[in-house]
Amino acid sequence: MKDFPGTPGTMFGLALRMSQFIFAAGSIASMATTPSFFNITAFCYLIAAMGLQTIWSFVLALLDAYAVVRKKVLHNPVLVSLYLVGDWVTATLSLAAACSSAGITVLYFNDLGHCHFGKECRKYQISVACAFLSWIPISISSLIMLWLLAAG
Amino acid sequence: MKDFPGTPGTMFGLALRMSQFIFAAGSIASMATTPSFFNITAFCYLIAAMGLQTIWSFVLALLDAYAVVRKKVLHNPVLVSLYLVGDWVTATLSLAAACSSAGITVLYFNDLGHCHFGKECRKYQISVACAFLSWIPISISSLIMLWLLAAG
Repeated sequence: MKDFPGTPGTMFGLALRMSQFIFAAGSIASMATTPSFFNITAFCYLIAAMGLQTIWSFVLALLDAYAVVRKKVLHNPVLVSLYLVGDWVTATLSLAAACSSAGITVLYFNDLGHCHFGKECRKYQISVACAFLSWIPISISSLIMLWLLAAG
Repeated sequence: MKDFPGTPGTMFGLALRMSQFIFAAGSIASMATTPSFFNITAFCYLIAAMGLQTIWSFVLALLDAYAVVRKKVLHNPVLVSLYLVGDWVTATLSLAAACSSAGITVLYFNDLGHCHFGKECRKYQISVACAFLSWIPISISSLIMLWLLAAG
């Protein structure tokens, strides 16, 4: 298999996984510290999706770090297929969660003209922004995986 | 370039484009006939995203139909790259629009316990469902395009 930046076991791949993990964890931290997120389905779904992404990115970051330190190449087709499926599922769920929460945040801030939740509103916004920021690297990772598998 | 079902100029490719067009048009029709959609940003965005997808899918369906009838092969790398970029942009926008509208629909139906908009609520639900149904074939198309381009 070809070797280019972003593939498993490279420094850029590790950086992508780390940024996914950090932003997803930031999104959860910001949302979970609001006292009323559980009243809104989309916000609960955001926490679930970001939780899944945190676990997935953390495990793959560990694998990448191991490969970088030991200078191993992780380009086994079976492994890349597994990465690909996992990346696509988490990327789609993350985008869906970020957009549904963004829809509600915009509804409360813009459409209804004010936010009833006081101080929590800022936290909702930060959480949604982090979710989008974590979606960008995971979508790059998933495109790289598909390219790697297809290019053979 | 390899030839497999779903690539431009095949019957399955044409079927995918047709279903994208039909569901996106259904989503717009259902949303645009409600009298108050313009009060909610996410619903306006849904109409914009579905409008883009309707135009994109219609043009590509025409191209595919021409290729099927004339038995031409549309596997030019430049053309496939263009298809790929267009498909990815419309697929991402469609998913984002469907999810943000779904978040608001679920908020009004489940979280707030009732829908204030009366008869329109059913139309919002139908519109969101159509948007998701149109996202499924466009995501399949975009995966096929990336695979086709990467496999060379």
